[in-house]
Amino acid sequence: MQSAFFKDFLYLTDIRTIIFIGVLVILFGVMKHMEKKKVKFSTRMLSATGLGLILGILIQIVGAYPTNPLEVPFIAEINKWYGLIANGFMNLLKMLVVPLIFVSIIRVILNMKQGENLGKLTMYTLLTLVSTTIVAAIIGLIVGNVFKLGVGYELVTGDAAIREVQPLVDTLQGLIPSNPVSAMAEGNIVAVVIFATFLGLATKRQMKKYETIVKPFIDLVEAFYKIILSVAMTIIKWMPYAVIALLANTIAGRGISAINDAIGFILATYVGVALMMVVHFILIACKGLNPIRYVHNVIDALVLAFTSRSSLGTLPVSIEKLTENVGLDNGTATFVGSLGSNAGMNGCAGIYPALVAVMVANMTGTPIDLTFIMMLIIVIALASFGIAGLPGSATMAISVVLSGMGLGEYFPLIAGVIAIDPILDMGRTMLNVNGTLTTAVLVGKAFNQIDEEVYYGRKTVQMD
Amino acid sequence: MQSAFFKDFLYLTDIRTIIFIGVLVILFGVMKHMEKKKVKFSTRMLSATGLGLILGILIQIVGAYPTNPLEVPFIAEINKWYGLIANGFMNLLKMLVVPLIFVSIIRVILNMKQGENLGKLTMYTLLTLVSTTIVAAIIGLIVGNVFKLGVGYELVTGDAAIREVQPLVDTLQGLIPSNPVSAMAEGNIVAVVIFATFLGLATKRQMKKYETIVKPFIDLVEAFYKIILSVAMTIIKWMPYAVIALLANTIAGRGISAINDAIGFILATYVGVALMMVVHFILIACKGLNPIRYVHNVIDALVLAFTSRSSLGTLPVSIEKLTENVGLDNGTATFVGSLGSNAGMNGCAGIYPALVAVMVANMTGTPIDLTFIMMLIIVIALASFGIAGLPGSATMAISVVLSGMGLGEYFPLIAGVIAIDPILDMGRTMLNVNGTLTTAVLVGKAFNQIDEEVYYGRKTVQMD
Amino acid sequence: MQSAFFKDFLYLTDIRTIIFIGVLVILFGVMKHMEKKKVKFSTRMLSATGLGLILGILIQIVGAYPTNPLEVPFIAEINKWYGLIANGFMNLLKMLVVPLIFVSIIRVILNMKQGENLGKLTMYTLLTLVSTTIVAAIIGLIVGNVFKLGVGYELVTGDAAIREVQPLVDTLQGLIPSNPVSAMAEGNIVAVVIFATFLGLATKRQMKKYETIVKPFIDLVEAFYKIILSVAMTIIKWMPYAVIALLANTIAGRGISAINDAIGFILATYVGVALMMVVHFILIACKGLNPIRYVHNVIDALVLAFTSRSSLGTLPVSIEKLTENVGLDNGTATFVGSLGSNAGMNGCAGIYPALVAVMVANMTGTPIDLTFIMMLIIVIALASFGIAGLPGSATMAISVVLSGMGLGEYFPLIAGVIAIDPILDMGRTMLNVNGTLTTAVLVGKAFNQIDEEVYYGRKTVQMD
Repeated sequence: MQSAFFKDFLYLTDIRTIIFIGVLVILFGVMKHMEKKKVKFSTRMLSATGLGLILGILIQIVGAYPTNPLEVPFIAEINKWYGLIANGFMNLLKMLVVPLIFVSIIRVILNMKQGENLGKLTMYTLLTLVSTTIVAAIIGLIVGNVFKLGVGYELVTGDAAIREVQPLVDTLQGLIPSNPVSAMAEGNIVAVVIFATFLGLATKRQMKKYETIVKPFIDLVEAFYKIILSVAMTIIKWMPYAVIALLANTIAGRGISAINDAIGFILATYVGVALMMVVHFILIACKGLNPIRYVHNVIDALVLAFTSRSSLGTLPVSIEKLTENVGLDNGTATFVGSLGSNAGMNGCAGIYPALVAVMVANMTGTPIDLTFIMMLIIVIALASFGIAGLPGSATMAISVVLSGMGLGEYFPLIAGVIAIDPILDMGRTMLNVNGTLTTAVLVGKAFNQIDEEVYYGRKTVQMD
Repeated sequence: MQSAFFKDFLYLTDIRTIIFIGVLVILFGVMKHMEKKKVKFSTRMLSATGLGLILGILIQIVGAYPTNPLEVPFIAEINKWYGLIANGFMNLLKMLVVPLIFVSIIRVILNMKQGENLGKLTMYTLLTLVSTTIVAAIIGLIVGNVFKLGVGYELVTGDAAIREVQPLVDTLQGLIPSNPVSAMAEGNIVAVVIFATFLGLATKRQMKKYETIVKPFIDLVEAFYKIILSVAMTIIKWMPYAVIALLANTIAGRGISAINDAIGFILATYVGVALMMVVHFILIACKGLNPIRYVHNVIDALVLAFTSRSSLGTLPVSIEKLTENVGLDNGTATFVGSLGSNAGMNGCAGIYPALVAVMVANMTGTPIDLTFIMMLIIVIALASFGIAGLPGSATMAISVVLSGMGLGEYFPLIAGVIAIDPILDMGRTMLNVNGTLTTAVLVGKAFNQIDEEVYYGRKTVQMD
Repeated sequence: MQSAFFKDFLYLTDIRTIIFIGVLVILFGVMKHMEKKKVKFSTRMLSATGLGLILGILIQIVGAYPTNPLEVPFIAEINKWYGLIANGFMNLLKMLVVPLIFVSIIRVILNMKQGENLGKLTMYTLLTLVSTTIVAAIIGLIVGNVFKLGVGYELVTGDAAIREVQPLVDTLQGLIPSNPVSAMAEGNIVAVVIFATFLGLATKRQMKKYETIVKPFIDLVEAFYKIILSVAMTIIKWMPYAVIALLANTIAGRGISAINDAIGFILATYVGVALMMVVHFILIACKGLNPIRYVHNVIDALVLAFTSRSSLGTLPVSIEKLTENVGLDNGTATFVGSLGSNAGMNGCAGIYPALVAVMVANMTGTPIDLTFIMMLIIVIALASFGIAGLPGSATMAISVVLSGMGLGEYFPLIAGVIAIDPILDMGRTMLNVNGTLTTAVLVGKAFNQIDEEVYYGRKTVQMD
C-alpha cells in the first residue's frame, strides 16, 4: 500500500538496497580505520578506488549484469543513495571554486613582482594548453586508425542528436562578465577570472597612491583566502570516502553489454589517454623535473578526476597538490588551474573528438587524407577555445568537430559511444586534469616559480 | 475609453477601491498617533490585528459576501494595493534573512566557548523539532477523530492535483551548496547555513595560528552584523502598519461560503493549534520558565506569523524577540531559528497533514487502526525533514504524507480544504513559529544560554 | 563541405567579412595613433563616431542597400564580429554598475552632512525627472502635429504585438528587494539602491555608538569604491574603439528602404530630441551655468549613449563626467544617475510615446483635443514611474501609453516604426542620458554641491 512512499520518496523498496548501503557504511569504517592508523593519504585514495571498483562490479553481479542497470529498481535506488554521498561531496568542492578563484586571482596579481607580466603568463598558459590539445588530437588520430575504429564492428544506431553548435563569437562574448554577481551565481569561471583581474590590477595601481585607503580590501582578500583554503583542506580530507561511492556508482550504472558493444572505442580511448600522459611526462622531464615524482605529487588529483568525472570539482584539489606537493606558487597554480578547467582540455577537446571523427569517417567511407587531418587539427584548435566554459563540453566538442568536418549528419552513428560515455569520461577527465597540471608545471618552470625542494619532498609547505 | 489603463495598469476603476485605500491611510494615521503616544509595541500589534480583521470583514460586507472575492473587481483592486504595503513590508524583512543568517552563523561559531559543541547543539535542536512535530501529528490524529473530519459532511471535489513528491535524497542533496553565491541568490537557507558553518569553523581554526591575518574578516563580520541588526530594527518598527494590510487582505480575499463549507476543518485546525501551543507552554514550564511571561515575550513574532503567513519573513522578528525579550544568546537564536524555519514545522508538517490524513481516511472508509497511526507517525517524522526548505511546504507535506499512507489517489477530495488554505495557513504558520521559538527556549535552557533576568524583564538587552 | 563549421561556428564564409574585420582593425590602429599623439579624448570620441558612421554606410553600400541587411550573410557575419567588440565593451561597463551603485549609495549617505536630508534629495530628483519628462511629452505632441505624423503617408502594417502591460503596483513592488543577492544578480538597480540606502542609514546611526565596531565596514566600502572607480577609468579609456564598432553595427544593420518608409517619424524624433535638449540647456542656463560649457563637459557620455543605445551602460561614464568635468559631488552624481537610469526617462517615456500617440491618433482619426492632451500628459507622468527598471522600456512605455489612451488595439499600425527602432533608440537614449545629466546639474546646484571651478575647467578633479 505504501509503495509510493518507499518507492518515490524514500527510494527504499529492496532489501538489496539496504544491504549495499550497509556495505558502504562498513567500507567507510575501513577507511576510517586506515585514517586512524595514519595510512598515507594517496594509499587511502588508491584503496578507495579499488574498493569502489569492486563494489560497483559486485552490484552488477547481484543484478545479474543487466543491460540497462539504472532501470533495475534496486540499482537505481543504490545509485540515488550512493549519489547523495558522491554528489554531496563534489558539491562541497564545487562550492569552493568561485570564492577560491576570485580571491586567488586578486592575490596573484597583487603579489606579482615588478617586471612580471600578467599578459605573458596568460599567453604562455593558453599556448601550452592549445598545443597539448593539438598533440592529443594527433594521438587520437593515430590511435583511432591503429584500432580501425568504425571499420571492424557496427555500432548501434540510436537517436543521439547533435547539439546546436554555439557560435564562437557568442561563446567568447559570454565569457565577458556583464554583472559580476550573476557571473558568480552562475559559476561562469572565466567571467569571474576577468572581473577579479580588473579588480586586482586596479588595486595594485591604487596601492601606490592610496595605500591606506585600499589596504582594508587587500587585508580582507588575504583573510578570506586563508579561510577558504582552510575550508578546502577540511573537505579534501573526506575525499577517500567519496571516491568509493563515486566509482561504485559509475561502474554499477553501466551495462556490461553496452560496454562490450563499444569495447574497441573504450580501449582506444584509454590507450590514447595513456599515450598522452606519457607525452605530458616527457614534457615535464624535458624541463628537468622527475616525472615519477610528479605522478607521486599529483596522484590524488588524478584519482579524484578519474572517479568524479568533474574537472571543476577537482580544481580545489589540483590547486592544493600543486601548492603543497609540486611547490608551485599558489597564485599561479590557481590562475593556470582556472584557465585549464575551461580551455584546451586535452581529453574532452583533443583525443575524444579525434577518435570520434576517425570512427565516423571509417563508418561512412570518408577518406582520412592529409586534408582531413589538417582540417581536423585546425577545427580542434579553434574548438578548444570555442567551447570554453560550456557545460557538457565533451558532447559540445564532438558536435563542433563533426560539424567542422562536414560529418554532422552522421551524429546518430555514435549513439553506442554515448551510451557508455561515463566510462570514457573517467579517462577523459583525468587527462584534462593532467593536461592542466602539466601546463601548470611547465608555466611554473618557465616563470621560475617552482620550489624544487618542495617538489622532491625535501621541504613541506602547508596551504592551510 | 481608458479602461485598460485604469484596469490593467492602475488597478483603480471603482470608487470603493479609492475609499478603502483612504480607510487604510486613516488607520495608518491612528497607528502613528498610538506610536507617538508611546503605546506599547505589543499593544499596537494587537490593535493592528483587530483593525485588520475588521477591515477585511468590512470589505467582504461591502462586496456582499461574494463566493470568489478575488473575482470581484473592486476587491481584487484593493487586494493589489493593500498587497503593495503588505508584501513590500514582508519583502524588506525577507531581504534581511540571507545576510542575517550568514553573519550570525559565523559569529555563533566564533563565539563558541571551549568545550561547547556545534554538533551537539544541532542534534539537540533537530531532535526537539522532530519530537514536537510528532506530538503535533498525534494531536492532529486525535482532534481529527474527535471532530469526525470527513464523516459528517461532504467536501467539494475539485481538480486539486497532488504535487510530484520530491525524493528525500534529492531534497537532502539540494541542501548542500554547490555555489555559495547562487545559494544566497536563491535564498537556500540551509545551504547558506552550511557554507557559513564551514567558514566559521575554518576562521576559528585559523585564528589560533594566523590571528592577524584573519582578523579583518572577523571584524568585518562583526561590523556587518551590527549594521544588519540595525536595519532589522528599523524595519520591525513598521510592523504594526503592515499587519493591518496583511490581515485585511487575507480576510477580504476569502469567500464566506467557502469558509462555511470547510468550517469543521477550520475549527479542528485551530483547536489542534491551540492544544499544541498548550503543549509548548507545558514544555517551557517543565524547564522552570513561566509560560505566560513567554507569551508576553514573543507575542509580536506570533502576531506577525499569524498575519503574514510567512515563517521565513517572521525570522528576523523571532530572532529579535528571542534576544531582547527571552534573553537567549543572539547567535543561538539565529541558529535555532534558521533550522526551525526549514525542518520540523509543527503546523505545516505535523498537525495539518495528520488532519488531512484522518479526513481522507474517513471519506474513503480507510480504517484508522494502529497500523495507520504508526505509519502516519513514521511518515510524518521522515517527511518533516524531507520537505526542508521546499516552497509551499504545507502542500508538499500533505502530498508526501498522503502518498506515504497510500492515499495519494484521493488528493482531489481535499480541494475544498485547499480553497480556504490561507485561513488555515495563519494558524499553521503561527504554530510553526511557536514551535521554533519553544525549541529555541528549550535549547537555550539546556545549554544554559538564557539570561533569566532578561526573560523576566528585570534587565534590558538591545540588539541594536 | 565544412560550411556548417564556417557558417554556424566561425561566422566566416565571405571574403567581405574578413575585409571589413580588417578595416575595423585598421581604424583601431588610427585611434591608437591618435591616442599616442595625445589627441583630446572628446575629439577621439567624435572622430570615432564619424568613422563608425562611414563604416556602417560603407557596409550598406557593399551590400547594395539590402532591405533586410541582417539577412545578407556577410552583413550578419560582420554584425556578429563587430558585436563582439561592441557588446563586449558595453558588458564591461555594465559589470561596474551594480558594485558602483552599491558602494556609492552607502558612501553618499555616510558623507551626508548634518542637516542634509536624503528624502529631500530623492524628492527633488524624482520631481525634476518627471517634470522634464512631461515637458518632453508636450514637445512630442507639438512636433508630432507639426510633422503631421500618420497623416501624410501610410505605415507598413505588421504583426507587432502590444506588450502585456505590467500593473503599476507590481512594478512598484518589484522594486523592493526581497533578497539583496538576487537583486544584485538580476541587476535590479532600484532594489540595490534601496538595500544600500538601508545599510548606509544603519551604518551612519551605529557610527555614533559603536564607531570602532562598524569602522571595518566603512573602510572596506571606501577601499572598494576607490578600486571600482579605478576599474571604471581603465575601461572608459577604451571607449573610442568601441564607439566605431557600436555605430557601424547599428547603421549597417538597418535597411535604407525601411528608413525611407519611416523618414517622417525619424525626422520628428530627432527634431523633438534637439528641441528638448535646448530645453535642458535653458534650464541649466537659468541656474547660472554656461550650457555650452556643459555640453563640453558631458559630450563623451552623450556620444556613448547615442552609439551604444544603453542608458545603464552609459552610467559609469555619466558619473565620471559629472564628477571630473561638471564638478558635482561624486556620491550625488551616482545617486541621481541611478534614479535617472530607471525613472523619468525624457526620451523613452516622454517624447517617444507622445509621438507614437499622435501618429496613431491621426491614422485612426482620433481627435487630438484638450481631453486627449491632458490624458496623455497624465498617462505619461504615471507611466514614467510605472515602467521603472523594466527591460525594453521604450516598447513598454508605448504599450502603457497606447493602452492608457484607449488606442491599444491599433498597436500593429506602428510596425514600421518598430522596424527602425535602433535608429530612433540612438536619439532617445541620448536624450534620456541628457535628461539625467541635466537633473544631476539642477540637483547639484540646488543642494550647492557643484564646484564651479571644476565646471569651468579651472581646477581638475580625478575620480581615480
